[in-house]
Amino acid sequence: MSETIYDLIIIGGGPAGLTAGIYASREGMSALVLEKGMCGGQVAITGLVENYPGFPDGINGMELIKKFKAQAQRFGVKISELTQVKSLQPLDGKIKVETDKQKYLARTIIITAGALPKRLDIPGEKELTGKGVSYCATCDGPLFRNKDVAIVGGGNAALEEALFLAKFAKKVILIHRRNELRGAKILQDQLQKMKNVEFFLNYNLVSINGETCVDSIVAKEKQTGKQKTIKVQGVFIYIGFLPNSLALKGIIDLDNEGYVKTDEKMKTSMPGVYAAGDIRSKDIRQISTACGDGTIAALSVREYLKP
Amino acid sequence: MSETIYDLIIIGGGPAGLTAGIYASREGMSALVLEKGMCGGQVAITGLVENYPGFPDGINGMELIKKFKAQAQRFGVKISELTQVKSLQPLDGKIKVETDKQKYLARTIIITAGALPKRLDIPGEKELTGKGVSYCATCDGPLFRNKDVAIVGGGNAALEEALFLAKFAKKVILIHRRNELRGAKILQDQLQKMKNVEFFLNYNLVSINGETCVDSIVAKEKQTGKQKTIKVQGVFIYIGFLPNSLALKGIIDLDNEGYVKTDEKMKTSMPGVYAAGDIRSKDIRQISTACGDGTIAALSVREYLKP
Repeated sequence: MSETIYDLIIIGGGPAGLTAGIYASREGMSALVLEKGMCGGQVAITGLVENYPGFPDGINGMELIKKFKAQAQRFGVKISELTQVKSLQPLDGKIKVETDKQKYLARTIIITAGALPKRLDIPGEKELTGKGVSYCATCDGPLFRNKDVAIVGGGNAALEEALFLAKFAKKVILIHRRNELRGAKILQDQLQKMKNVEFFLNYNLVSINGETCVDSIVAKEKQTGKQKTIKVQGVFIYIGFLPNSLALKGIIDLDNEGYVKTDEKMKTSMPGVYAAGDIRSKDIRQISTACGDGTIAALSVREYLKP
Repeated sequence: MSETIYDLIIIGGGPAGLTAGIYASREGMSALVLEKGMCGGQVAITGLVENYPGFPDGINGMELIKKFKAQAQRFGVKISELTQVKSLQPLDGKIKVETDKQKYLARTIIITAGALPKRLDIPGEKELTGKGVSYCATCDGPLFRNKDVAIVGGGNAALEEALFLAKFAKKVILIHRRNELRGAKILQDQLQKMKNVEFFLNYNLVSINGETCVDSIVAKEKQTGKQKTIKVQGVFIYIGFLPNSLALKGIIDLDNEGYVKTDEKMKTSMPGVYAAGDIRSKDIRQISTACGDGTIAALSVREYLKP
């Protein structure tokens, strides 16, 4: 067990966690961020962020995260990357945090562990992941220059990545299970203008095929049930997210989808434990709302710690 | 009446309003910001903003607002400054907005009119405003180089401005009615280290004196009732804010202090009308939370406008 007792341990180093760190450290709290991979969460794998206020020309996701991180560190936040939290449990009015490396004690916790892309769970998806199946066009898109790719999904993430891919790929096929896209109008309009984007609305993806790598997909029209085989070399899946809350099940109240329930002060069902950002049960998940959440959580912790 | 029917009129051009504008315009809505002065709200009169995530070395308040404004305009938001909203009223399923210049029709409204500094209402305050009494150290502080000044208040704003003034003034006297400061620990620590800052805790300011300009103040110790006359040439008042909601009274539900009540989707009691930022009834008012609010309000408006 680490001998230091932290005022605050933040689980997750995305925008919510780093913002909570900035605020907590400015308030004089000792704060440690535990991040299972590298800081940044979903933002770090986003190419151009255009809707976070303060950057009129947009900013690369990784660049934005570097700034968040530098700001938190400037005020004294400690950050431990590649550190996976295994469990949380109350101990003598504090909270014990066990990671894959060591144990910590903290007076309070803010959970900002975010969410991960959902899987389709169709034949070929798991087998061909990394061999043409990807959940990150920003990371893998450039590998598909002059090739045909499919994108599955209809939300902002799917549309943004489709636009990004359309710049590299020969053809982009957008497959969505509803007859209407859900993402921002501006993105829909931009996509409509691209000559190499084809829409398959009201289609489900049924399977992904290929031996050593993806060579085709089968999509089924929902109304007629008619199946169609389409030659593609890449499949990008953007159908939503699953909260990183497995370690919290049975410990903290979660909603039906596994997101952490909080009140408007970001307080969870466990005393001293708060949650902020994408892992929280709420409607809207944006960088700006994650930062708002992180701010509120840190200032709520300050109130909680007052003698 | 303007012939255009806007999808959204945003009342107030601070961080909440401009963020709502960025999101709304990216969603393809026609959006107009009506700002009674110049864009920026409280941020525009803040010297260095250190806690808005994304700017590790801090950023001047006015500079930050310029970026917000450019970003909103880039996506097509119209901004009308020096335009005071006089009234809001429902009209045939839309909302009529009357300003000191003209009338507008909008399908939805987001109120982001912010809050203004509270007055102490003591003798001499009104008479000497602009003659030594100020509500903005960032604006007027440099006029008090090598002079003695008093600051009233104990929150973040008061402490930040005391630190700022301590760089110019010969002596800074901090007067607070409680025996403990409320602002961030880091600011308290920094102030304690300044050699020219003196603390008057548990004191009320009773009057501000001077003929053509401030020459002294009278402060009363709360426990003993003992009064003390202190020679100062400036008085800066930072005792909180009043919401800019006068025009909304009787139209939209407000809390006891006059802040606009909303649900977590930022919806007010009037259909189609949302509120975000400092004017909203809530606990924490920061730039980051204003941006979070603005984002949620704009995306809630999108839902509301869906056929």
